[in-house]
Amino acid sequence: MEEMKPSPPNSSPLTPLGFLERAATVYGDCPSVIYNDTTYTWSQTHSRCLRVASSLASAGIGRGHVVSVVAPNVPAMYELHFAVPMCGAVLNNINTRLDARTVSFLLRHGDSKLIFVDAQSRALVLEALSLFPLSSDRPLLVLIADDDAALGNQLISSSSGNVGFWCTYESLVERGNPDFQWIRPASEWDPMILNYTSGTTSAPKGVVHCHRGIFSITVNTLVDWAVPKQPVYLWTLPMFHANGWSFPWGLAAVGGTSICLRKFDAAAIYHLIRRHSVTHMCGAPVVLNMLSSGAGSSSDAEPLKHPVKILTAGAPPPAAVLFWTESLGFEVSHGYGLTETGGVVVSCAWQPQWNRLPARERAGLKARQGVRTVAMTEAEVVDPESGAPVRRDGSTLGEIVLRGGCVMLGYLKDPEGTAKCLRGGWFYTGDVGVMHPDGYLEIKDRSKDVIISGGENLSSVEVESVLYGHPEVNEAAVVARPDEFWGETPCAFVSLKANRGGQQAPPTEKEIVEYCRSRMPHYMVPKTVVFKEELPKTSTGKIQKYLLREFAKQMGPPSSRISRM
Amino acid sequence: MEEMKPSPPNSSPLTPLGFLERAATVYGDCPSVIYNDTTYTWSQTHSRCLRVASSLASAGIGRGHVVSVVAPNVPAMYELHFAVPMCGAVLNNINTRLDARTVSFLLRHGDSKLIFVDAQSRALVLEALSLFPLSSDRPLLVLIADDDAALGNQLISSSSGNVGFWCTYESLVERGNPDFQWIRPASEWDPMILNYTSGTTSAPKGVVHCHRGIFSITVNTLVDWAVPKQPVYLWTLPMFHANGWSFPWGLAAVGGTSICLRKFDAAAIYHLIRRHSVTHMCGAPVVLNMLSSGAGSSSDAEPLKHPVKILTAGAPPPAAVLFWTESLGFEVSHGYGLTETGGVVVSCAWQPQWNRLPARERAGLKARQGVRTVAMTEAEVVDPESGAPVRRDGSTLGEIVLRGGCVMLGYLKDPEGTAKCLRGGWFYTGDVGVMHPDGYLEIKDRSKDVIISGGENLSSVEVESVLYGHPEVNEAAVVARPDEFWGETPCAFVSLKANRGGQQAPPTEKEIVEYCRSRMPHYMVPKTVVFKEELPKTSTGKIQKYLLREFAKQMGPPSSRISRM
Repeated sequence: MEEMKPSPPNSSPLTPLGFLERAATVYGDCPSVIYNDTTYTWSQTHSRCLRVASSLASAGIGRGHVVSVVAPNVPAMYELHFAVPMCGAVLNNINTRLDARTVSFLLRHGDSKLIFVDAQSRALVLEALSLFPLSSDRPLLVLIADDDAALGNQLISSSSGNVGFWCTYESLVERGNPDFQWIRPASEWDPMILNYTSGTTSAPKGVVHCHRGIFSITVNTLVDWAVPKQPVYLWTLPMFHANGWSFPWGLAAVGGTSICLRKFDAAAIYHLIRRHSVTHMCGAPVVLNMLSSGAGSSSDAEPLKHPVKILTAGAPPPAAVLFWTESLGFEVSHGYGLTETGGVVVSCAWQPQWNRLPARERAGLKARQGVRTVAMTEAEVVDPESGAPVRRDGSTLGEIVLRGGCVMLGYLKDPEGTAKCLRGGWFYTGDVGVMHPDGYLEIKDRSKDVIISGGENLSSVEVESVLYGHPEVNEAAVVARPDEFWGETPCAFVSLKANRGGQQAPPTEKEIVEYCRSRMPHYMVPKTVVFKEELPKTSTGKIQKYLLREFAKQMGPPSSRISRM
Repeated sequence: MEEMKPSPPNSSPLTPLGFLERAATVYGDCPSVIYNDTTYTWSQTHSRCLRVASSLASAGIGRGHVVSVVAPNVPAMYELHFAVPMCGAVLNNINTRLDARTVSFLLRHGDSKLIFVDAQSRALVLEALSLFPLSSDRPLLVLIADDDAALGNQLISSSSGNVGFWCTYESLVERGNPDFQWIRPASEWDPMILNYTSGTTSAPKGVVHCHRGIFSITVNTLVDWAVPKQPVYLWTLPMFHANGWSFPWGLAAVGGTSICLRKFDAAAIYHLIRRHSVTHMCGAPVVLNMLSSGAGSSSDAEPLKHPVKILTAGAPPPAAVLFWTESLGFEVSHGYGLTETGGVVVSCAWQPQWNRLPARERAGLKARQGVRTVAMTEAEVVDPESGAPVRRDGSTLGEIVLRGGCVMLGYLKDPEGTAKCLRGGWFYTGDVGVMHPDGYLEIKDRSKDVIISGGENLSSVEVESVLYGHPEVNEAAVVARPDEFWGETPCAFVSLKANRGGQQAPPTEKEIVEYCRSRMPHYMVPKTVVFKEELPKTSTGKIQKYLLREFAKQMGPPSSRISRM
């Protein structure tokens, strides 16, 4: 059997890009993307993506170049998931809620050659570029103004100097070649995606996925969630979060329809579900929270006329939220993944006999992260010292480790960071969990510095470093405070400097919050500030965050919010 | 980006074997395999497979060794799709309906180390072994006697000499270790499967698939057929036919239930559909024929109480058969694949707007093979000389070529045969087809089945599909008959429906010819019609055209007919 070797017919690189071509053949006249009153068909989306890819190629963008996108879930954002890699480049989605300093850092770290900028993120990106060193090259700028040509032209003509816009997205479509021969990857290990994590350290990490990895997570998710042909998918998950967990490509594979939207609340979601007969949606638990807490008008949260499947991940969903969401007619699946895995790679695969249990017990079982999905080789909880699996007793803590086709290639320009988490044949997630006797794993604690607020991972270290910049602050520690709406919010424990000069009044909670607000994205700003004489420390002087976390937990959710539930 | 390279956590070999372990975790107490009155759960199937794998390893079977199976669709057959590769060996299913000489050839060609033999194939295999040269090593023999221990022991004790049985399958289960650490492939390109192509060629070829290829076809088929969680699957397709098109592994991925059976007719199928609420089944068009032609008692072919999905492939299904099968409540999907692709890699992806067409028109569209499935990179119809794609006009004949992850590694010990079909980046299928303007391909014939009459290439399949539309025709096959004037002329072999109503006279040759004449170009009309009780078929239900071709050759040129032209 030794003579049997791979050859071009059986080893052509795995990539999800071909799904688009196939969708145009099979579902050519069916809706691909719907946004407000605009509907595209798969033929049109295919043609538009080829046009944009050809325009990028004409502009000199090609293999290995990084192309960034700062945009919400508009049609251009969907299309760029194909168009950018179809010209050979690497797609780099950037969170629109970051501050200019961070965006500037990411653009330079990734050596971005071109940025697609939504009109509403224009000021953010221009400010980010103004922070570039004078000597450095500026990326090309393309404006996404939906199909509002007048707005586009006005914004472009009003920009000037070396940070001006090149053109609008629609003009790239218009001037492009619909018969462009798209650039297939030379190898399935070629980079396709660059996503920055907000991370557990103050320096964001650039997660690189290859074509094979993105193919794997895409097919994996379709099988795991049993996605049927032609679903109607509502984009309540930002595509800049791990590429919308691979659904831009997955929907092409099954001919689904994307319902795009810039922003949403409960009322918008319920309206679109009814209008388009939505069948599927994804979101962090905060989205479930929104649906079930009647965050919109009370009449919105009425039982659905047809079942809608929701896949939730990104944080452990509170059992109570699961319970309420399901009682409204949503069918919730719960999974787990990281930017480093491109999407959901562990899921709480539902066991039929659980349907006979009381609802709250069901919700408790569903709050567990679960078992590896089909494209993953293994998922374990191990002792981080020895690497040996922990006891399957549901209580022994260990680190969650994964291996399989969806794991990233590594962190860009960070061989040390890469080697730290990709070792011994495993990806070390940094998440702490237990393995239950039935083989389902459950996260007990995100790696201890991370706070997950409204689906966003935020690093306590980053917030602390800002607090430490305040002239009156002596020590600061930020931990998660449970919140029924946001999941968690940052809670800052602060001690003030001793020799402050007798006359001056100490800073108030409000002043500290305002200080932070001017220096970081809103979602990172502490919602609570607790002043302490001294922060608890270990004998070696490390602040004992676990004690503060306990304290924050005992404070409970902010009472003003409880009344709204 | 150049520093980004694959590493063990993201490049662990793709293989479908892990699906079993996962099924045991998620669906442990759910039925995996049902056979007569025996039901196994996924926990049991997992444990049984590990036991058998460990017993094989103890017997010295390991990496690269070929293990053969000669058995129908019994539970052991299902389990061996996991157990054999789990000890590192290569699974080699052998068609139970082959003759001893062929079986002997295959066993020696594959250098089989061990054979699992169903009790009913015992004589066949013993005869095959008796044809081995005296000097050659004999494989170990293991007897599959279902769970009939008495029969097993009796058959084993009655065997003797150097062709005796080692033990029964169940004893391998009993003595095995359920905690066996199964052997993962060292590389995803490691051989996992050896399948001999059947029937239609004189020299069988040993198709070798690797773990990656089998993973690809398995996931591919689940996505393409949109298989939900926990389907109930009736095994009307022999597992020895291209490993049941990958469903032994696919059913583990989705926790489905296999309804096993030794043999079947229409009555058995309808009975099992009702008894087990079957949701899915596969089969060559001959199975559809059986269901819709009332091959059993007339009461069997009654409309179903719930829809049953059938995936058919292996031969182009006549539109009339599709029409009748669907009118009974079956939802037919039509695909195309070869042993060399491990299963269905082109499928007639259904377009929603086709549902508005009249039933016969729908059936005509569904009889086309279609578009590539999601794990395949490309499917084309090319001019075999130049390699250039043919015009997309639905009439220009060319050879169907494929590339993608499901294509075989090659033919065992046949570098020439491999090089002949794996070339220029494509797998040349040897099938002749056309590309329709809408991008759907349609097979017109195997290259060797094309009839060249008066310089015109004509497709025997097209003639057959017209013949199938005749109300009295049960089965039809058209082959070339040598002709001194035309070179070749189409010669039709026809069997008539059994329950035709006693009084009516059977159609004559002249009537059949006239029926054809009004429905196709003159050059395509059969010049000869031969009525047969039954047409010769392979074990997988394919009509053995080479036998009919031989028959037509021996008839000689129709000298009397030349004068009539």
